Amino acid sequence: MKINVGIVGYGNLGKAAEHEILKNKQFKLVAIFSRRVVKSKYGTIIEPYENHLLYKNKIDIMLLCGSSIYDLEEQTSEIAKNFNIINSFDTHQKIKTEKDKLDKICKANKTISIISCGWDPGLFSMIRGLFYAISKNEPTTFWGKGISMGHSDAIRHVNGIDDGIQFTVPNKQAIKLAKQGKLTTQTPKHFRECFVVSHDTNHKKIETEIKQIPNYFSGQPTTVCFLTQKELNKMKVNMAHKGEIISLFNDTQNHTHAMNFSVKMKSNPYFTSKIMIAYISAISKLKNLANFGCFTPLDIPISWLYYESEKYILNNLC
Amino acid sequence: MKINVGIVGYGNLGKAAEHEILKNKQFKLVAIFSRRVVKSKYGTIIEPYENHLLYKNKIDIMLLCGSSIYDLEEQTSEIAKNFNIINSFDTHQKIKTEKDKLDKICKANKTISIISCGWDPGLFSMIRGLFYAISKNEPTTFWGKGISMGHSDAIRHVNGIDDGIQFTVPNKQAIKLAKQGKLTTQTPKHFRECFVVSHDTNHKKIETEIKQIPNYFSGQPTTVCFLTQKELNKMKVNMAHKGEIISLFNDTQNHTHAMNFSVKMKSNPYFTSKIMIAYISAISKLKNLANFGCFTPLDIPISWLYYESEKYILNNLC
Repeated sequence: MKINVGIVGYGNLGKAAEHEILKNKQFKLVAIFSRRVVKSKYGTIIEPYENHLLYKNKIDIMLLCGSSIYDLEEQTSEIAKNFNIINSFDTHQKIKTEKDKLDKICKANKTISIISCGWDPGLFSMIRGLFYAISKNEPTTFWGKGISMGHSDAIRHVNGIDDGIQFTVPNKQAIKLAKQGKLTTQTPKHFRECFVVSHDTNHKKIETEIKQIPNYFSGQPTTVCFLTQKELNKMKVNMAHKGEIISLFNDTQNHTHAMNFSVKMKSNPYFTSKIMIAYISAISKLKNLANFGCFTPLDIPISWLYYESEKYILNNLC
Repeated sequence: MKINVGIVGYGNLGKAAEHEILKNKQFKLVAIFSRRVVKSKYGTIIEPYENHLLYKNKIDIMLLCGSSIYDLEEQTSEIAKNFNIINSFDTHQKIKTEKDKLDKICKANKTISIISCGWDPGLFSMIRGLFYAISKNEPTTFWGKGISMGHSDAIRHVNGIDDGIQFTVPNKQAIKLAKQGKLTTQTPKHFRECFVVSHDTNHKKIETEIKQIPNYFSGQPTTVCFLTQKELNKMKVNMAHKGEIISLFNDTQNHTHAMNFSVKMKSNPYFTSKIMIAYISAISKLKNLANFGCFTPLDIPISWLYYESEKYILNNLC
């Protein structure tokens, strides 16, 4: 039997999730919920956000594809009362608080949430978690070059900004130092390059406001460049992104060991949606166990991400 | 309270595990069990293998450090009747059978086994499992250059061989093709270079016998080189190893994504012991849940590998 999926949010991530779900025979895409009046070129039913309650028993799992800082905190708590959800909540500093809050909601309503389930946090959290468990050293993560969806979203919500994107650019010198085990906090790991369109001529004010957004830009080397919508649109087409995790550690005999993980994605939203979709199977497993509550990918065994038999997995992947 | 650990097998892996356990304040190393008469330079109690039964309630977890093809299949079944165990069983083709057999033993005796918990299978299985869950494509693994403990062990058990090691050497051309998504079965992925000391002058016979060992050499490009014990001893000092996992896949819009994972270890046995030791914490979690049976790392959530608080993990690694 097919798993009935709903999508909340119809930006880049929501559109990618729509296409991936439509092409996967294990799922049926029931509806997309959006606060904007939009149409799907694939004919998917698009409902106003408020209508999600009407689908209470028609959707097994909701993929929440809104923006972390403006949509997800509010929407997830609301939707998790009635649905099993997966989101890619990416405000690292708030994950524990969000998890505790949602865990209560889910347990009270017998639902399941898997949060922070994108590429970072999500896939990268698992790799960092594994590296740390083995080495007992915190690994170093580099992101980019690529447009960060979360950071772009954050600048688009600044007053006076019509549109904008943010490129995260890793500092190559810092990567080199990390691989040698010599990186200190004095070397910046990333540069944050913002490109914004604004009808407000007070550019200085906007620049200052961006640089002060907590968790996203505050305390990090950030540049802001103003340009036209037409120029920005050309840059926006590029949805590629990269990331790298480096772990270097010594054992008790002072042998040095290195673990490296890297991802190059041609489309950040498509890659993210692939990860969210991989965790749908874990929701089914948790449901069968009546294990209600809020989880992150760190709480989910990898063997729960398969529809294939254990025999296939152990013979071919283990 | 400290966790009481025992070690079975006192080869390279057993010695590395001994040193790592002795240097970790969370554990108490109770005894090492060996079939050979040996001494520990750290003063650890070394008991004959048969005596392990005398320690039934004195050891919380046994690290099985014997050889996969000659010790582990037999020893694990025996020891798992009375102890929680972790091993690094590395005969990929037999993991499912071994798991099913041990699961029955563990459930009947209320014990816990985590098997195939080294770097490969083990850490690499988790990475391949994650890559597969996201991409639905089987990733490609390359090993080496490095001495394979399992393969060296396999050749040392051939009649007429006094001592020997095997270097696994990846085919650079194959790595290049894999990264381009062009690797076919026609290009060999690895070369297997065996270096052996033998009192038997019928080298041809020995060479043939090595090349026919199923699961380890049969069907793979293998060379066998005869040398003196003195020459071999010089080569043996090098315990370094490497490995790499490559995944290249397209999403439903034909965007190409690449995931890469690599490890460079200065000491294969020390790195392996670090992984086995990381899973001791999971044994404690499973014990608290009275979840008896046999598991592989794929069945264990990464969040079970920590003694640190969830808050620390989510804030610093997620």
